[in-house]
Amino acid sequence: MKVKKKIILASASPRRQILLQQIGFDFEIRHSSVEEVFDKTKTPEENVIRLAEAKALDIAKDIEHAFIIGADTIVVMNGEMMGKPADDGDAFRMLKKLSGREHKVFTGFAIVDKPSNKIVSNVEITSVKFRDLEDEEILEYVKSKSPTDKAGAYGIQDDYGAVFVERINGCFYNVVGFPLTKFYITLQKFQKEIA
Amino acid sequence: MKVKKKIILASASPRRQILLQQIGFDFEIRHSSVEEVFDKTKTPEENVIRLAEAKALDIAKDIEHAFIIGADTIVVMNGEMMGKPADDGDAFRMLKKLSGREHKVFTGFAIVDKPSNKIVSNVEITSVKFRDLEDEEILEYVKSKSPTDKAGAYGIQDDYGAVFVERINGCFYNVVGFPLTKFYITLQKFQKEIA
Repeated sequence: MKVKKKIILASASPRRQILLQQIGFDFEIRHSSVEEVFDKTKTPEENVIRLAEAKALDIAKDIEHAFIIGADTIVVMNGEMMGKPADDGDAFRMLKKLSGREHKVFTGFAIVDKPSNKIVSNVEITSVKFRDLEDEEILEYVKSKSPTDKAGAYGIQDDYGAVFVERINGCFYNVVGFPLTKFYITLQKFQKEIA
Repeated sequence: MKVKKKIILASASPRRQILLQQIGFDFEIRHSSVEEVFDKTKTPEENVIRLAEAKALDIAKDIEHAFIIGADTIVVMNGEMMGKPADDGDAFRMLKKLSGREHKVFTGFAIVDKPSNKIVSNVEITSVKFRDLEDEEILEYVKSKSPTDKAGAYGIQDDYGAVFVERINGCFYNVVGFPLTKFYITLQKFQKEIA
């Protein structure tokens, strides 16, 4: 696919940047100032799409000509929406809760086209099953500080995170933080629609 | 987990090397001279375990003190066992066959302990669903030469490969070429048993 405009990624996540590079996209990075606060009266889908759109629109207001991409990832376990852990204790609590069980990862993404101001958004959901974790492994992982900036306090591509996961069902890259295939197809279709 | 011996990886696959580094393992690399030939009268499980053991044992015969790891990955679609493509035409044929459908990835691995000569082996199976691919995308991917050294002619972490995959069911790293979590658990148990 030929991308016909400059791409601006409204995300500070180094993992999202690596994934977009992986599919050969050139892009610029801007950090939005949108706060990642969940509305507990809304579904996980609604929350991640709302935040993804808010991030993209926050950057888009200063841009004349580009595709601006926003994204947001949350982990959902038994109805609890988990974003980034507040501190080490919160990271331990999250990982302890995920241990030995299956949870769902939701990533919403939005593409804003400038100058048309058209917007498209989508969400991908992946199930992830953790093996039983020992408290000691969780403590060591928390001590590494890797959980700090990650929804659900783990990174599936981390040294520990990789061996916490027993299996997944769905898009792998969604668990990393950006659903590459769905994004690629969505952008392809969006480009045709606005052409 | 503390690994109590030197690890030798009997594999030339750069992807396996990166995965083992990812979980923080130190290891040495040796290339075995075992030929990857399938026995069509045997199941995929039997084939990948036999080849993984053969690779590890081939290197182990010259080693005094270490864990030697062998692995082999194949892709199975409608009963056809696909290894690395013979040439570009074969790569095209494989990808065309995988397009829009679900296949299974089998990775067998073996750990040989020296000097005890004890051996443990295991296999991981992951289902992978491709989206519908256009002939043009397949041709471009084949032209990139990336399929050459990969079972089933694709790499899930490649620029194109990543966006060919719609979803997986099972261990992601198995599709990359080495099932990290199952390997980690198997080695942990093996270390205790031989202690």
